[in-house]
Amino acid sequence: MSGTENIISLNLATTRQQWGFAEAVEGCVKAGITAISPWRDQIEAIGLDEAARLVREHSLRVTGVCRGGMFPADTAEGRQKALDDNHRAIDEAAALNADCLVLVVGGLPGSSKDIAGARQMVLDGIAAMLPHARSSGVKLAIEPLHPMYAADRACVNTIDQALDMCEVLGETVGVAVDVYHVWWDPNLAGAIARAGRMNRIFAHHICDWLVPTTDMLLDRGMMGDGVIDLKSIRAMLEEAGYHGPQEVEIFSKDNWWQRPGDEVLETIKQRFETVC
Amino acid sequence: MSGTENIISLNLATTRQQWGFAEAVEGCVKAGITAISPWRDQIEAIGLDEAARLVREHSLRVTGVCRGGMFPADTAEGRQKALDDNHRAIDEAAALNADCLVLVVGGLPGSSKDIAGARQMVLDGIAAMLPHARSSGVKLAIEPLHPMYAADRACVNTIDQALDMCEVLGETVGVAVDVYHVWWDPNLAGAIARAGRMNRIFAHHICDWLVPTTDMLLDRGMMGDGVIDLKSIRAMLEEAGYHGPQEVEIFSKDNWWQRPGDEVLETIKQRFETVC
Repeated sequence: MSGTENIISLNLATTRQQWGFAEAVEGCVKAGITAISPWRDQIEAIGLDEAARLVREHSLRVTGVCRGGMFPADTAEGRQKALDDNHRAIDEAAALNADCLVLVVGGLPGSSKDIAGARQMVLDGIAAMLPHARSSGVKLAIEPLHPMYAADRACVNTIDQALDMCEVLGETVGVAVDVYHVWWDPNLAGAIARAGRMNRIFAHHICDWLVPTTDMLLDRGMMGDGVIDLKSIRAMLEEAGYHGPQEVEIFSKDNWWQRPGDEVLETIKQRFETVC
Repeated sequence: MSGTENIISLNLATTRQQWGFAEAVEGCVKAGITAISPWRDQIEAIGLDEAARLVREHSLRVTGVCRGGMFPADTAEGRQKALDDNHRAIDEAAALNADCLVLVVGGLPGSSKDIAGARQMVLDGIAAMLPHARSSGVKLAIEPLHPMYAADRACVNTIDQALDMCEVLGETVGVAVDVYHVWWDPNLAGAIARAGRMNRIFAHHICDWLVPTTDMLLDRGMMGDGVIDLKSIRAMLEEAGYHGPQEVEIFSKDNWWQRPGDEVLETIKQRFETVC
């Protein structure tokens, strides 16, 4: 592996309560963190041009833009609206020269109980945005979310399921491997190896799974505070040929979002050295 | 299928805040529900002999005893203690002539991050209790739990994973298919079909997945109030050769546990006719 690439990237959701885009960039520069992954609302708040200027000024690597996706909808109009939004997301990712656009694919539309149908809408949606992604040079990273989000956030819930979609869709579509979502998977090692053989590992997100977890969305843990064997999963990824950044994405309303951003970044750097 | 077997069974956790064992039996008899699945603390509270007497008196079918399992532990002593408890659970299931002993297998022991190791402890634990189960005529039903419980309740999280264990362990071990835990599985249909071919479907548990879910353990929904396509999953099970009872298991601290037990049972009966 190229050791220089195994760096920290800060997913800006990790400090979203403390910092906007500009403050987060300043915090990262001060902390010596050279890669970020912003959310679209954060880009919108500062403006795409200014965001891109800051990225260039500080020579930051953008490991992803969060997020496209949310394809399923009850109506054709709703699905078209999602596609239009995904086109804009591609443009933003291109403007920031991001490694990928992360896709959180969406759950069941309206009052539907048809998860197979929702999954088909996801496949159709990615297929529809793919020409624009390809012509823009933007990779699409399907992020399988934990099955506890299958109903309301993402009906793609395992790496294998995402890879099955990649096989149908062809090049430019891969996976973002977020340990929070996949650590429990009995076939994790096999799925990561398969993703490597397909050359489709576009991102590696890290945090930790706390016991107990008190909120299904906003109680993610700092690396080392939970039960995920981060070193082992990183080894699987490197074995599969992925040697890129580890993007720290922690939604933590009662803990890390309540602390000063600088403290959060220092903790991330310490933990990155010891448990990742 | 034999229509007479597709009956409601009341998992007594559904009314655990309202009723003990005897009251639940009385409520079921009054409501015309002829099958139950008790928890061991409920059996212990009334005494095994009295529980067995009530079951015989009312000619109740016992679709399962909840629960054995919880195999992983940090120490050999801890694992032996779990085995001793599982032996007693087999004896209770035998005394009640239960269709199976449900196994909630346990999560990561102590501060372990080794989920593969925990899974091995589960396999070893079931293997160790299997001779007593066989000589007692008690089937063991591994219940794959939702991946959100992988750390603290059960490291067996898909039907396929449970079936892989069944293949290693041999006869007498099967699966309890609880829709709450498996509805999201991209390979659900395939896994149920495989379980059918192996003749290992020992139970079918129902409830619903609410959106939003406000508590990871105690916010299960009544059938029809959530997003699970219960009819489709039942069809998969019948296609796979399972035509037995549908056991209603709802942990609902803020809703169904707060209502009179008779009302809960009437609602279950209505929903069973319309959405199951």
